[in-house]
Amino acid sequence: MRVGICGLGTVGSGSYNLITGNRDEIRRRVGRDISVAQVGCRRDHPDCDLTGVDVTRNVFDVASNPDVDIVLELIGGTTDALDLVLQAISHGKHVVTANKALIAEHGPEIFAAADDAGVQVCYEAAIAGGIPIVKAVREGLAANTIDWLAGIINGTSNYILTEMSQPGSNLGFEAVLKEAQALGYAEADPTFDVEGIDAAHKLTILSSIAFGVPLRFDAIYTEGISRITTRDIGYASELGYAVRHLGLTRRSAAGVELRVHPCLVSRQHMLAQVNGVMNAVMVGASAAGPTLYYGAGAGAGPTASSVVADVIDIVRRSGAGQVPNLGFQTQSLQDCPIVAMEDIVGSVYLRMVAADKPGVMARISSILSSHDISIEALIQKDARGGDAYVVIVTNDVLEKSVNSAMAELASLEEIRGDLVRIRIAAL
Amino acid sequence: MRVGICGLGTVGSGSYNLITGNRDEIRRRVGRDISVAQVGCRRDHPDCDLTGVDVTRNVFDVASNPDVDIVLELIGGTTDALDLVLQAISHGKHVVTANKALIAEHGPEIFAAADDAGVQVCYEAAIAGGIPIVKAVREGLAANTIDWLAGIINGTSNYILTEMSQPGSNLGFEAVLKEAQALGYAEADPTFDVEGIDAAHKLTILSSIAFGVPLRFDAIYTEGISRITTRDIGYASELGYAVRHLGLTRRSAAGVELRVHPCLVSRQHMLAQVNGVMNAVMVGASAAGPTLYYGAGAGAGPTASSVVADVIDIVRRSGAGQVPNLGFQTQSLQDCPIVAMEDIVGSVYLRMVAADKPGVMARISSILSSHDISIEALIQKDARGGDAYVVIVTNDVLEKSVNSAMAELASLEEIRGDLVRIRIAAL
Repeated sequence: MRVGICGLGTVGSGSYNLITGNRDEIRRRVGRDISVAQVGCRRDHPDCDLTGVDVTRNVFDVASNPDVDIVLELIGGTTDALDLVLQAISHGKHVVTANKALIAEHGPEIFAAADDAGVQVCYEAAIAGGIPIVKAVREGLAANTIDWLAGIINGTSNYILTEMSQPGSNLGFEAVLKEAQALGYAEADPTFDVEGIDAAHKLTILSSIAFGVPLRFDAIYTEGISRITTRDIGYASELGYAVRHLGLTRRSAAGVELRVHPCLVSRQHMLAQVNGVMNAVMVGASAAGPTLYYGAGAGAGPTASSVVADVIDIVRRSGAGQVPNLGFQTQSLQDCPIVAMEDIVGSVYLRMVAADKPGVMARISSILSSHDISIEALIQKDARGGDAYVVIVTNDVLEKSVNSAMAELASLEEIRGDLVRIRIAAL
Repeated sequence: MRVGICGLGTVGSGSYNLITGNRDEIRRRVGRDISVAQVGCRRDHPDCDLTGVDVTRNVFDVASNPDVDIVLELIGGTTDALDLVLQAISHGKHVVTANKALIAEHGPEIFAAADDAGVQVCYEAAIAGGIPIVKAVREGLAANTIDWLAGIINGTSNYILTEMSQPGSNLGFEAVLKEAQALGYAEADPTFDVEGIDAAHKLTILSSIAFGVPLRFDAIYTEGISRITTRDIGYASELGYAVRHLGLTRRSAAGVELRVHPCLVSRQHMLAQVNGVMNAVMVGASAAGPTLYYGAGAGAGPTASSVVADVIDIVRRSGAGQVPNLGFQTQSLQDCPIVAMEDIVGSVYLRMVAADKPGVMARISSILSSHDISIEALIQKDARGGDAYVVIVTNDVLEKSVNSAMAELASLEEIRGDLVRIRIAAL
């Protein structure tokens, strides 16, 4: 299958680099090659090596290029993008887009044209970046009646609220916004993000795929974060809440709630743990109960991950075959050594009962050291009746070194009972 | 499409009830009816009304029943279940199973038979209950090279560790296990869960679909939670860690790490927030970065959600058509009133600056009360220069009542400047 990329900004260049750079692994999964036939862009991108690629400065060339099977609409906006998508469809091409405004505002026109032409239009990347939330709702939860959905779906707003919530930061909205702009997390004109419009586009789509209702961007209630103060964040925190900008949609007897605004969220809730530019969507479903999907909501890699996943879906559905049983083509399974447990490297927690007398700690330390185990923390706890608990956290160490050290420690007269090891997850 | 259900325990009865009880919503999504043609079970289930259903006491009848297109293998175990699945395949039926042991130990034989027969075998429900993690890895993240995966994939173990971690509980492993057994969260013989075997079956499958390596249940390192003590949980907590039972798999130059064991997880990490019987899987992918999938790991509804999602996938891939653009068939989109913002009900946080003098709080309270707003908490903060900040948390209230109350409060001479309202998310 041959892809034509329209637009070579962050998402376009990320998609180009993912298709070309991860080609072998994708072929193992799909069983056929996915290649870039043409790139349409006003200017080159410093991160992309376009050597040998057919480049046009007119994106509409891509829509009519007979060598292109799937058009990626990554130019943004809703005027040229709409024309481009409709032209691509009229030329019988499948379309993948990351454009939430386009789908939220012009979805019905686009889908009707695609149905008439017998092509597919996919938009996983339009919502929550690298999180496969469209797939989760349309397919993973397809057996359920969905009752509600709540999401942190604008990374800029979440970054600003998280920074404003740092203990002792006391930076107000304007100051953090400037910081976010400097870091590239907010646009020069941040209105779409901080006033909730971007989140409203995304929630419009999520509400439709959750409940089977038409896209109603015209009817959504939208409120941004520009009036949130550190004072209110502080008071909310004292009351046990974090402040988050949420998209909320819920189905009730009265109809569908559809709203985007700041919220107090209980600090115990998973959504309160979503910090910085990360996104998360929680879905309340009749059978599955609440499920949550968390990941990066923007950026070249995450958005490209969803763009190219849509491309792969189209290829698989277009006769390249089903999803293979184990995700990769059977003939592409690669036997691979399983690393022996004793060769695993990681830090560990060790706990033992030791005689509470001079020289014991030195002996323990010296045994560890003789096995090349360096100590990050060592604490002695709960001394009683001549014994004390010794707790050690190591730096990264080879499992077999810990095994030997534990055997040697266990043989010490001053160590009583079991030695406990719990490995520390490096995540 | 006609389904035959084999086994009518928790998962079988849940799947039966979901297919029959949610039939209309499923038809809106899929565009055709999914019905139960036959149920094979040794005995009826009290939660299932089987009136009018063809019931057989011999599950093997279902595998050869010409009225059945898709066989749901929900009997468990690896002997009869293997025979049943192979017989169903040999009769040209698609298979959906929730059986992790069967796939982890006999996957290659089953998949080869299915490929020969041209039928599909799906197993979303085998891992992490209602979380569509197989779909996320095989499809949502298909464009990535996956680097690692870490999951809380045994609800029984997580429930026990969470309960042992409750501040002041001090209940040891054996006591909490008994409690879990009484609540139905642990089996009478809990070995499979608490010794990590169940998690090892699941991780074996996850590792294969993440990296494209063969199923290597024979090579997995497995350690359970039966030797974890409240003492070690307490020490870990003092060091900033929670104790969780993780499945970990990682690809490195040396090969694939494949291990299931207790871990210390930083308390700031999302996986440390996963409590009770909930499951979560985090996937580290080359383009998408880390994404996390959270939800109920077991139970009738969540597991049935995944079983029936697999059935829907099979139906869609078998010529019923693509996934519709908005998740539901276009002709099934139901226009639905959007609830006006003023008709939304919820609790709110209100904050204002009020003159710090006698009678003001009474006036505020009385205005709220006159608009049917009851107060859950009211605190006065940071009095200075004759003014004080007043923070109020209401009980559930109609948005328009808050609007009117805020208008009336704003007109009070004793209230200075803006009134702030932040809605509280009921999640």
